[in-house]
Order: sequence, then C-alpha cells, then structure tokens
Amino acid sequence: MDVIKTMMHGTQTILFENRPAILSHAAVGGKKEAEGPLRAEFDYLGRDTRMGQKTWEKAESKLQELALDIAKRKLGVSYEDVDVLFAGDLLNQCIGSSFAARGTAIPFLGLYGACSTMAESLLLAGAFVNAGYARLAAALTSSHFASAERQYRYPLGYGGQRTPTAQWTVTGAGCCLVGKGDGHPYLRAATVGRICDLGIKDANNMGAAMAPAAISTLQAHFSDLRKVPSDYDLIVTGDLGALGSQILIDQFQRDGIDFHGIYRDCGLMIFDTGRQDVHAGGSGCGCGASVLCGHLLNEMERGTIRSLLFCATGALLSPVSAWQGESIPGVCHAVSISTI
Amino acid sequence: MDVIKTMMHGTQTILFENRPAILSHAAVGGKKEAEGPLRAEFDYLGRDTRMGQKTWEKAESKLQELALDIAKRKLGVSYEDVDVLFAGDLLNQCIGSSFAARGTAIPFLGLYGACSTMAESLLLAGAFVNAGYARLAAALTSSHFASAERQYRYPLGYGGQRTPTAQWTVTGAGCCLVGKGDGHPYLRAATVGRICDLGIKDANNMGAAMAPAAISTLQAHFSDLRKVPSDYDLIVTGDLGALGSQILIDQFQRDGIDFHGIYRDCGLMIFDTGRQDVHAGGSGCGCGASVLCGHLLNEMERGTIRSLLFCATGALLSPVSAWQGESIPGVCHAVSISTI
Repeated sequence: MDVIKTMMHGTQTILFENRPAILSHAAVGGKKEAEGPLRAEFDYLGRDTRMGQKTWEKAESKLQELALDIAKRKLGVSYEDVDVLFAGDLLNQCIGSSFAARGTAIPFLGLYGACSTMAESLLLAGAFVNAGYARLAAALTSSHFASAERQYRYPLGYGGQRTPTAQWTVTGAGCCLVGKGDGHPYLRAATVGRICDLGIKDANNMGAAMAPAAISTLQAHFSDLRKVPSDYDLIVTGDLGALGSQILIDQFQRDGIDFHGIYRDCGLMIFDTGRQDVHAGGSGCGCGASVLCGHLLNEMERGTIRSLLFCATGALLSPVSAWQGESIPGVCHAVSISTI
Repeated sequence: MDVIKTMMHGTQTILFENRPAILSHAAVGGKKEAEGPLRAEFDYLGRDTRMGQKTWEKAESKLQELALDIAKRKLGVSYEDVDVLFAGDLLNQCIGSSFAARGTAIPFLGLYGACSTMAESLLLAGAFVNAGYARLAAALTSSHFASAERQYRYPLGYGGQRTPTAQWTVTGAGCCLVGKGDGHPYLRAATVGRICDLGIKDANNMGAAMAPAAISTLQAHFSDLRKVPSDYDLIVTGDLGALGSQILIDQFQRDGIDFHGIYRDCGLMIFDTGRQDVHAGGSGCGCGASVLCGHLLNEMERGTIRSLLFCATGALLSPVSAWQGESIPGVCHAVSISTI
C-alpha cells in the first residue's frame, strides 16, 4: 500500500477520504444545563452535580461513563466492539477519563487538549478509522463546574466574585463513536492547531486567550482547503464565550471575511447567559462536547445542518503556570462534519 | 483507497506496513543522570536541575525544548518541516509540553499517558506517518524530579523519607522524529494498552501498580502477532523499577514464558540503584524517553540491538484521586522497533 494522498505536509489539514462516520453520539449534562435552552437535546441530565457520587471528581468520571455507555447502547454494540478510546478532560492527570475508562477494557489513549479535547479526540478517532487502524473508535470528554472551580480557581465555599469576562464551566460530557457506515454525519477533514499565545495573563478571560488560536486554525483550514465560511452551514467554536467570539468576528471582519449568520459559539448556545447568570457564557471540555454530541449532531440528523465546522479551543494554562507569571497559550483544532 | 489491512479490530495491535522510521532522536538529562551509567548516551546533560530557568516547571519545559531542538538539528530540518508534534508530561495540565511547543508553531496534539507517554507519542507519530497524514512527526516527553516531587508527593524542603519501593523521577526528556527513510530503526507495530487496576493504593509503589498493565499489553502483543519474547533482542519497560520488574518476570515465569536475558527496565538502567540511592530505580516519562532516545536507539544504530520492544507504563493517578481513596490504574503501550 502506498501513502494516502491526504497529507498535512505544508498544511495543517488531514482529508478523510474514507468517510469515517459518527455512527452514534451522546450528550450528558447536569442541573444547570437542564435549565438551559438546549435541555431537550441531551441524552441524560443529572438532577444534581454529584451524579450520585461522593465527590465532584468521581461525578465527572460518571458523566464520561454515562456518555460512553449511552453512545454504545444507541449503536447496539458492546465495549468489546470499540477498538480504541481517545479521551481527556481538564482535571489534573485527566482522572475524569482514566477512571471512566478503567472498567471498560477498551484500549485507551489519553489526551490533554484542555477544552479542545472534543475536537482532538474526534480528529484522532477519525484518523484511526480512516486509516483502517480501528473499525470503531470512541472520542470522549467532560468537564464539571465544581471540580474545575476548585482546581483552577477557588473552593466554591469561598464565594469568590466572578468578573464580567469569567465563564461558567459546563457540567457535561460528550461521546462520539466513529466507524464506517452510510446515512450518518461523516468527517471530511480536520485541521490540527498550532499553539498561539498573545500574552493574555487573566485566567478569568479565557475567551481572549483562546481567540487567536481559533482564528489561526480557521485561517489554516480555509487556506488549506481553499474554502470560505459560506461553504459551511454553520461554524461553531467550543467555548470562546461572548468576548472571545467577538474578537474572532472582529478579526475576520478586518480581513474582509463575513461570519454573520454562519458562526456561533457553544458557550453562548448552552446557557441563556443573562437569565442563568453565567457572565460571558459556558466553557470547559464538556461545553463543546455536549453541544456537539447533542444539539449539533441531532440537527445534522434532522437535516437542518448539512455541513458543520466544529472548532474546539483550549487554554493550555495550569494554576502553577499562572502563579509563575506565564501567559495563557491557546490551541484550537477544527473538524469538518458533513451529511452531503 | 481502501482500508489498510493493519487492523486492530479484535486485537490491540497496529501493523505499520509503510515502515515509519525514527530518522532522528535526542536524549536530554540532568545532574543525577549525568552521574549514572548511561551518561555517555545523552545528547545533552544539564549541570543542575534548573537548566538556567527560574522554576523547576520551566526547567522541565526547557528539557523538552532541548530534546526537540537537538533531534531537529541532528536531522538538519527546521520546525516548519515537522507536520505534527505529539507531546505530554506529568505536570498538571501538561504545561511541560505546551510551553515547550509554544515557540515552535508545529501543529500540536497534547497527550496524557503519564509515564507511558513516550510509547503513546511514538505510536501516534508512527500511525500518522504510516497513514500518510504527516511526512515528519515528532514524539516528545519529559519528567523532572523536583517538579514531580512537589506536585505528587511533598515539597522537597520537607525532607520526607522515601520508602524502599519508592522510585526516583528522572530529570530528562526524549524526542523522536518519525518519517520515511531507509537505514534507520523503523516502527513495525504498536500495541495500545488497556487500563488495568488491581487495587494497589500505595503511591510509593508505582511499580506494583503498573506491572499488571505491562503484563496485559505484552500478552496482547505476543498473542496478536503470534510472537514470543525471544523474537526480540530486547524487551524493555519504561519504569517498573526493581519491584514491578520482578512482578512481571514472575508472572510470565508462572505462564511458562522465560524473560531472562531478554528483558530489562529503563528505571534500572539509567541509575546505579545502590550507589545513587534511588531505591527501586528511576521513573517518570523522562526515564523511558531518555533511555530509548539515547542508549537504546544508539545501540540499534550501532547494530547491537536489532529488534526492540519498547513498553512504557503509566500510573494514571492524581493526588486528588489518591486522597479520595482511589486505587492506581495503570496503562502500558508497546512499540516494536527494528533495524532488520
């Protein structure tokens, strides 16, 4: 066999010529997500943030277990049928993922892409199925408001005040099962992002820190594939929020590229930002993941979205890097999903 | 193009039919590594643990920067020639990797596999080159004794006593550049590990926690490819240390499989365990990484090792999971490297 002619060399984009398809998907959310405008699009909504577990970290693992289990049951397969699981989350050492995967015996490749993980895991699942390494590959990620707050910011009991640019970490998870099959949304291409850091140091302004990475990856995607935004029915970012989204729109407008009517941000879709008091919008791996694996893929199956560019952005900081005076590097990966 | 007939389905192993090769490799170490038996095999050895940086975490990023830079210079390429970088480390949110990659503009896919990261990154770099997604892919990881101690255990100034089963985190990094080219060690196959957890809870006994994962992955590798240990000149684990290695040898002996003379552990190779007071041996992502990317690949180029099975094990715990009473899940990925 010779090399597939789908090369990234000189570009950042992989073309998936063998049409790896999203055969099944599931979105899981918590209490606040159940109060939001997308409530009807989730496969499961927890009644509280504990998900019946003793700690928030165990609850986050439970979110991933549920998303994987529901996606698997919707497809009518067992864990033995899944060749490889790509998963990651925001918790230190990605314990949300490793403890969720522990009971499944699925060959496991752990990722850390911060909030870009849904795009990274989907990209790698697609790459494995497209190349024939896996017949069925899972992409999985999560976030949890309470486990993220205490790890990245303050203990919840401290009652720290939130700045206007702060975002609200989504309690949720999303899972895609990628394989071969007609009649499903399929992966056309994926663009691997470069790390961008324009020097933002405010850990309460992730949108501004991540926007340059989203802009860079979108520019690479359009350039590599000679596409324009209007080639897509919808372009979504994972969790840029109100401020980050506006930076992205402004930058493209300055470059003469119009995003109006084509672009949305999952962080602004999952919550009613005013009524639900989430300031600049939702965030976290689970934000893009649950909006993609619920609402967006449902819309593709309903035929209302035919071509989607899913761009998940991640802020690659840690509390230690922030304490040491470092700025916040961002990364964004884009996956092109189509039904046509 | 049809699907490559190199499938994992029903197995855990990918066959790399297009012979992705390790075109260049570099190993970087610190002061203690410079005092060890493999000192002559490193490309660069720091004179202290700070590597000229203000903090240990920044020093760890520097280790990765150096390993990537040296591997790149040895091959005579620039960062623009590298299509994708797979990297991860032990630090919270993998800041060792993201800050090292920040200045390179190489498309970046972050991993978290704990100490299995050298095998995971090499496996994915091989998978991308084999499938034609990348012409040149980098695999990179690191660990640092001081940053790991303060994150996982105690502040160094506390002077906590080490148990006999404790291991010493290697201050080091390793990088492989994978592409196409004759006359280099090439990747034949890789086995993706399942998470194994037999209930070990002692964070000072990682060897015992990780040994079941190594045994599981080796069994899968031998079974998938119908191989026996003697098909390899050398089988190495990344950092099982004295106790974990013995568990592995004992288990295979019980199954009637003899590992004597064929098997070694990088954690027992990098230090003179008695003289250097490292108790059960070296550990960390940088242990397997620097022994592979220095000594072992040098030996393959010298012709003294022709076929190597590199098995890196990771303990997927975090301090939080340990505090919450969880046991320590392990994972192990194996990469088969050959010159024949």
